[in-house]
Amino acid sequence: MSDAYLVGLVGAGVTRSFTPAMHMREADAHGLRYLYRAIDLSALGISPTEIGDLVRSARILGYDALNITHPCKQLVIEHLDRLDETAARLGAVNTVVFEDGAAVGYNTDTTGFASAVRHHLPGAAVGGVVQLGAGGAGTAVADALLSLGTEHLVLVDVDESRSTKLARELAQRHPEARVESGHPDKLPVLLPAADGLVHCTPTGMADHPGLPLDPALLHPGMWVADIVYRPLDTALLQAARHAGCRTLHGGHMAVYQAVDAFRLITGVDPDADRMLAHLSELAAERG
Amino acid sequence: MSDAYLVGLVGAGVTRSFTPAMHMREADAHGLRYLYRAIDLSALGISPTEIGDLVRSARILGYDALNITHPCKQLVIEHLDRLDETAARLGAVNTVVFEDGAAVGYNTDTTGFASAVRHHLPGAAVGGVVQLGAGGAGTAVADALLSLGTEHLVLVDVDESRSTKLARELAQRHPEARVESGHPDKLPVLLPAADGLVHCTPTGMADHPGLPLDPALLHPGMWVADIVYRPLDTALLQAARHAGCRTLHGGHMAVYQAVDAFRLITGVDPDADRMLAHLSELAAERG
Repeated sequence: MSDAYLVGLVGAGVTRSFTPAMHMREADAHGLRYLYRAIDLSALGISPTEIGDLVRSARILGYDALNITHPCKQLVIEHLDRLDETAARLGAVNTVVFEDGAAVGYNTDTTGFASAVRHHLPGAAVGGVVQLGAGGAGTAVADALLSLGTEHLVLVDVDESRSTKLARELAQRHPEARVESGHPDKLPVLLPAADGLVHCTPTGMADHPGLPLDPALLHPGMWVADIVYRPLDTALLQAARHAGCRTLHGGHMAVYQAVDAFRLITGVDPDADRMLAHLSELAAERG
Repeated sequence: MSDAYLVGLVGAGVTRSFTPAMHMREADAHGLRYLYRAIDLSALGISPTEIGDLVRSARILGYDALNITHPCKQLVIEHLDRLDETAARLGAVNTVVFEDGAAVGYNTDTTGFASAVRHHLPGAAVGGVVQLGAGGAGTAVADALLSLGTEHLVLVDVDESRSTKLARELAQRHPEARVESGHPDKLPVLLPAADGLVHCTPTGMADHPGLPLDPALLHPGMWVADIVYRPLDTALLQAARHAGCRTLHGGHMAVYQAVDAFRLITGVDPDADRMLAHLSELAAERG
């Protein structure tokens, strides 16, 4: 393949993303020439529906791969030559690799979340999990949970039609598991029996401060994972620690999706702990 | 500006160009993150008339600059926001820099040839010069000669309409000089009085071997410059040395056009001698 790597991140509002810096610094540690560009559709005034043109242009202009984020993860699919099994199952792509002239779609959000749980919540029970949020990130996380062995997954979203739809799709793909949709009002009933809680809504981000649920519902028998990573230490995680829960911050998923993408792009195994340390630095510097 | 540089070379048959490697190795010496891609229209099956789309896409996809070569140096102009004085005068662009959202065209073929003569033929008389070849490269070189002070320039091309047209244009732009077109038959009359000979046709390249003129016409009172640089040591230059002439090989122009482009792109002064040494290495390795 190439002895130099050109990679881009395409999405709305990606200018501030940590991903380009994470990839480049890790590549430096391996002595690889690596340039990673943020291609911010909002800043450029480009419609997400132009994603097909961007993929074609990127290939022509020597890109080796693209990461794809909101709102293009589904839109990009019809412009690819093939999908790996995970991306095809999810119907969402966050990584496109140009391999021998073909554009191939992967989803390392899913594999990334699964790796984060395996590495940073070792031994945690995952049989019964409550998940808040059934949007794009929630779809990837739910699939990862089921692949990790969750037997009973309850999806809770303020938009119950969305959680119901996702639960139905997941139940079809994972007939061995029980996947249900639940109204937020039911959390007081659901959480006492849960092994874990995963939070997949924007609440807790710098511009959506606050808690996504009543912290009195948290109990020391459960772990709490947040996929928000700016800030790394959200109000939810603070409350969870206060309640005695094991916790997993959103930086872990952000790092492992990058770890898996980096490996797909370069064939080189990155050092996940070094990338996590770098992400923590970036978060401390840039917030 | 950027702390990382993404640059491309757009043209037909550029896959084997030394320019990407020259730029990247020089950037490494300055500690710059720099990736330079060859975008070969022939290999990609893209028409040169699509150059406008390529320039727009490159800007969107985070390119800092493009070098432009055959057959797009004129075609690219209508797609740029402005031209520097040299490029505007020549009507040809070999370097596009994206500066604060504007695409600006430059011509470092011209400045590169002038620098090559100044640095590597110091003190050479340039009053009377015969130039073989009045195509794209010849246009840039002729303009450089006139900027160096050539008072009498004779353009010789097998296609006399081409040399006549170029001579007329140059005479208009440089009223202080005498610029003429001459038939190849006249070389035995023209060369004895010439201070120098510049060769700007493909003859002598690996796939166009041979000599562009009768070597008996070369004499020790003249210098000989070849713009062919693959191979670096052409049959013409060998004959010229044999005849006692000072010589300038085509690698010098190739290096100085890259020197000037590198400076425009990065704002950093490259080391021309180091780049020349690298080009010589590349030529020895890859022919």
